[in-house]
Amino acid sequence: MKAVVFDKELKLVNDYKKPVPAKGEALIRITLAGICNTDYEITKGYMGYVGILGHEAVGIVEEINDEDQSLLGKRVVAEISYGCKDPECPYCAEKLYRHCPNRHTLGIWRKDGCFAEYMTMPLEVLFEVPENVSDEQAVFVEPLAAACEITEQLHIKPFEKVVVLGDGKLGLITALTLNAQNIDVILVGKHQNKLDIAKAQGVETFLLNEFKIEKKYDVVVEATGSISGFETALALTKPRGVLVLKSTVAASKEFNLAPIVIDEITVLGSRCGQFGAALRLLKNERIDFSPLISATYNADDAIEAFEKNKEKDVLKVLLRFSEK
Amino acid sequence: MKAVVFDKELKLVNDYKKPVPAKGEALIRITLAGICNTDYEITKGYMGYVGILGHEAVGIVEEINDEDQSLLGKRVVAEISYGCKDPECPYCAEKLYRHCPNRHTLGIWRKDGCFAEYMTMPLEVLFEVPENVSDEQAVFVEPLAAACEITEQLHIKPFEKVVVLGDGKLGLITALTLNAQNIDVILVGKHQNKLDIAKAQGVETFLLNEFKIEKKYDVVVEATGSISGFETALALTKPRGVLVLKSTVAASKEFNLAPIVIDEITVLGSRCGQFGAALRLLKNERIDFSPLISATYNADDAIEAFEKNKEKDVLKVLLRFSEK
Repeated sequence: MKAVVFDKELKLVNDYKKPVPAKGEALIRITLAGICNTDYEITKGYMGYVGILGHEAVGIVEEINDEDQSLLGKRVVAEISYGCKDPECPYCAEKLYRHCPNRHTLGIWRKDGCFAEYMTMPLEVLFEVPENVSDEQAVFVEPLAAACEITEQLHIKPFEKVVVLGDGKLGLITALTLNAQNIDVILVGKHQNKLDIAKAQGVETFLLNEFKIEKKYDVVVEATGSISGFETALALTKPRGVLVLKSTVAASKEFNLAPIVIDEITVLGSRCGQFGAALRLLKNERIDFSPLISATYNADDAIEAFEKNKEKDVLKVLLRFSEK
Repeated sequence: MKAVVFDKELKLVNDYKKPVPAKGEALIRITLAGICNTDYEITKGYMGYVGILGHEAVGIVEEINDEDQSLLGKRVVAEISYGCKDPECPYCAEKLYRHCPNRHTLGIWRKDGCFAEYMTMPLEVLFEVPENVSDEQAVFVEPLAAACEITEQLHIKPFEKVVVLGDGKLGLITALTLNAQNIDVILVGKHQNKLDIAKAQGVETFLLNEFKIEKKYDVVVEATGSISGFETALALTKPRGVLVLKSTVAASKEFNLAPIVIDEITVLGSRCGQFGAALRLLKNERIDFSPLISATYNADDAIEAFEKNKEKDVLKVLLRFSEK
């Protein structure tokens, strides 16, 4: 089958072995997939991953190796990590598969990804896509769930002021998601055209150089994807406030941790999320992701799509692997 | 009056002007005071402070400039920060004076400290010392309150495992305080003689080089006072666990923040605490601080006491300013 593989370099392979579902797994024909910045980071060496890339996709279940055939023929999305399912594993018991020490993560860690004609995934991480949700919206469910993770980890009260720093994909999706949950959110970024996407859906926005840096916000989400974002975020977080770290920046930087102690700041690392809340937002059409789609490529042009993804001002680039 | 002053250098001054209590303040005759590592940091330039040092003390109220004379003649301790008391200040409204943007902090920020024959402090930060608590125990109330701050900020469940890293004053007091609240705590340090102080009061202890570094603890308290402690603490914190930062280390270091995001760690800055819980622990004699007292000096020998405080293996050094 066709697959986009990273092995020292990024390549399109036409004869990759089609996967066979193990017991409890489904074979999924990928229709549409999305390129994430993590994919790009992997091509620069992040996680030391080798294999098929990709962890954002929609597809159709074509085969199930299990007694439970209820998802056969259905359109699905898959949570990206699955765990050991050992009854002793506290993370698997809570469906926090992404923290299971023996986890596999789609296209990131010990598991071929979704940039291919087919993938296999365990049934327990598959979710049927509601009929009214298009492939183009559903393909955003993974980053949308990651944005929903913030309110899973943190109780944001209705009167609290939240700032999201960064107007790339991560920042835009985070701000739109918080806004869709009726949270009082301000998006701060450097690109008026990107800020306008959030503004059109009701988010208050500011250009960074027009935004007053004051230590007065209850919650500040660092979503710049840049190592310097942390210090700006800290300068905006009020004493006893929460700084949510969303960017996984591989680089290191020199930090002074004393301000965190003096102001009793909580720094909260936040990564992937469960798909339930994200699918509800999609079903109820609380966010329109179309303005975030910069281009859609056929799988044959995947290398070109990765090049496009690097361009300034480009947001989400999609890959079409088959028709619905 | 006699006072220990820092102004470019540490000096003992014999003719410092005796303070006069402003409206709402008390004049306190200091009996016993304790040297904290923060005092030592200040003599190296921390906070850019100039004035009388010291923020840990017990004393007798000799005069009150207020209608309310109830504390006159009483033995008291003082919370170290007081706020603006503006009705609009959310921090003062919650008695979180230490986060008021216009605060004064005893011997640290805009307020002469307690290493003197007298100090003044506002009535609202004074607490009477229970009769059964000696000066030698009461002088520990400030670091004890700082240790109690952890359970004010964080709900530690009875089945959770807590590690305190560092067996200096900060680590010992933190471990003893958590243990006194029936929390399952392990103290890890480099000095068997210091660990033994905690062990004698029921704390499980380990030498760092005999302790297995595993990412499995729910809560890890970084109390080493050293910049490298942060990375060890992170290596002990389980996914979705909490790393409590207690050390205010002025130095910076290069950090990679990605592990915080990947494991969804909460980094919680934790500083001073309110005195209520600390005074209850003292009154109920839940901790014996005597083994932490390395030496007691008369005020006239304060410079020598500061030298003693720098010695390896020395824990708390006390200064006697007057008799009870």
